[in-house]
Amino acid sequence: MNDEDAEEAKRRTRAWFETLRDRICAAFEKLEDDCTAADAQEHPPGRFAFEPWQREGGGGGVMGLMRGRVFEKVGVNVSTVSGTFSIEFAGQIPGTSEDPTFWASGISLVAHLRNPHCPPAHMNTRHIRTAKSWFGGGADLNPIYPDEADTRAFHARLEQACAAHGEDSYARFKKWADEYFFIPHRGEPRGVGGIFFDYLEGPFEHEFAFTRRVGEAFLDIYPELVARHMDRPWTAEERAHQLERRGRYVEFNLLYDRGTQFGLKTGGNPRAILMSLPPEVTWR
Amino acid sequence: MNDEDAEEAKRRTRAWFETLRDRICAAFEKLEDDCTAADAQEHPPGRFAFEPWQREGGGGGVMGLMRGRVFEKVGVNVSTVSGTFSIEFAGQIPGTSEDPTFWASGISLVAHLRNPHCPPAHMNTRHIRTAKSWFGGGADLNPIYPDEADTRAFHARLEQACAAHGEDSYARFKKWADEYFFIPHRGEPRGVGGIFFDYLEGPFEHEFAFTRRVGEAFLDIYPELVARHMDRPWTAEERAHQLERRGRYVEFNLLYDRGTQFGLKTGGNPRAILMSLPPEVTWR
Repeated sequence: MNDEDAEEAKRRTRAWFETLRDRICAAFEKLEDDCTAADAQEHPPGRFAFEPWQREGGGGGVMGLMRGRVFEKVGVNVSTVSGTFSIEFAGQIPGTSEDPTFWASGISLVAHLRNPHCPPAHMNTRHIRTAKSWFGGGADLNPIYPDEADTRAFHARLEQACAAHGEDSYARFKKWADEYFFIPHRGEPRGVGGIFFDYLEGPFEHEFAFTRRVGEAFLDIYPELVARHMDRPWTAEERAHQLERRGRYVEFNLLYDRGTQFGLKTGGNPRAILMSLPPEVTWR
Repeated sequence: MNDEDAEEAKRRTRAWFETLRDRICAAFEKLEDDCTAADAQEHPPGRFAFEPWQREGGGGGVMGLMRGRVFEKVGVNVSTVSGTFSIEFAGQIPGTSEDPTFWASGISLVAHLRNPHCPPAHMNTRHIRTAKSWFGGGADLNPIYPDEADTRAFHARLEQACAAHGEDSYARFKKWADEYFFIPHRGEPRGVGGIFFDYLEGPFEHEFAFTRRVGEAFLDIYPELVARHMDRPWTAEERAHQLERRGRYVEFNLLYDRGTQFGLKTGGNPRAILMSLPPEVTWR
């Protein structure tokens, strides 16, 4: 890819992640408006607040955060950063052994819901350019009370997004998610899975189209799953169980999540990175 | 040290950790009885519940947990384990390059208080035997609202415990704590410090006496600091700030604490290891 094409690839991927962010935020705000749960009437519908930040060393991002009546805390971050990897990391990242410069853009989303029957979820996709260039990302569902129909619908929509990527893509990316979103010290998965993929170095248009389809799939199915449950009543016991289960999410993110560890150890913005942590958690 | 002496060292160190545990638990239960705060009268004085556990591979421990009116959640664990390090760890632990077998006994304590004016604290000491043998441990204070008199008293008592160990021991172990109990991604210390020490391979009687003095110092000063503040009233704002600050403790423990990482990755008991996590936490 020549320099002009590389710049065009950066411009288009970044624009996509920002567009996807805008559409997701609009969909989530609509759910805030639509909620009719008795408890929800005590709170005004939530709205996203956006806060830009600059990265020392190059680039920055925008943190989007909403504390609403459906979404107790949801963060949607877009960042586009560039610079030079430290010696420590340069060797670990493809294409950096001779030239440690990089460019990366991506969207990252974590939603924690007020209603214990609404499934929390995570989604992120990114494009990274060093001497090589690739796409990575994933999406998974972390219900407090797993619901078979939700799990099937979530996976079916992701499978559809994977179909044009390759015959075995869904099977591979689902397996990768099962392995990745696992909490070894608890001996349990962190949720009901989804897909996980990285280092997709195929032709740019092919991988970029796939990345967009993953975003579209998430936007299509996840608000639908939240809508299914957001008006259901819940008990104090269910709330207590929800706060306890959120502890597992924190354990996974701080002990095992590669993005979190990588971000914090490369001088990323801790407020943006830790926006994934639940608003309220218990360890009994 | 011959085999008979080694067995005697194991017997004595283990007995000390168990005795210290009993005395600390008694002191904490007394505080539960003594508390006169208005809010405390709604709850009965807490009592420790003890639960033994067995380690696959050798040994085990006893988890001690109290949920009281002064101590919202306090864990005091004693464990005595032995076995063979996995290949992954054998090279990293002194004295295991030729023989990967080990024996370890220790006490570990983390206290989270209900009253935001009472300082949370951590203390642990341990004796480890491989082809080498050594003592390690530490104690630090993590006030929500630092109080200069408390900080001075805590450090003064630890300094006294270090005095007979060596002229510069307190200065070295305090500096070690300042470096260790630091949260890099937040750019802030996790509390007001204390002492931290490891690989103390001096003469057994010398290091064991020091380890006992550290335990005695903690037992002497920490209940006193809790007693100073436990009857003070607090506001909803102070409680909210406390829950937020507890998040920093979780971040440190899961991202950086060597004992936590080591324990979870060597098949330790996750319930005992994660007993250090606060009962209720927020990330706003």
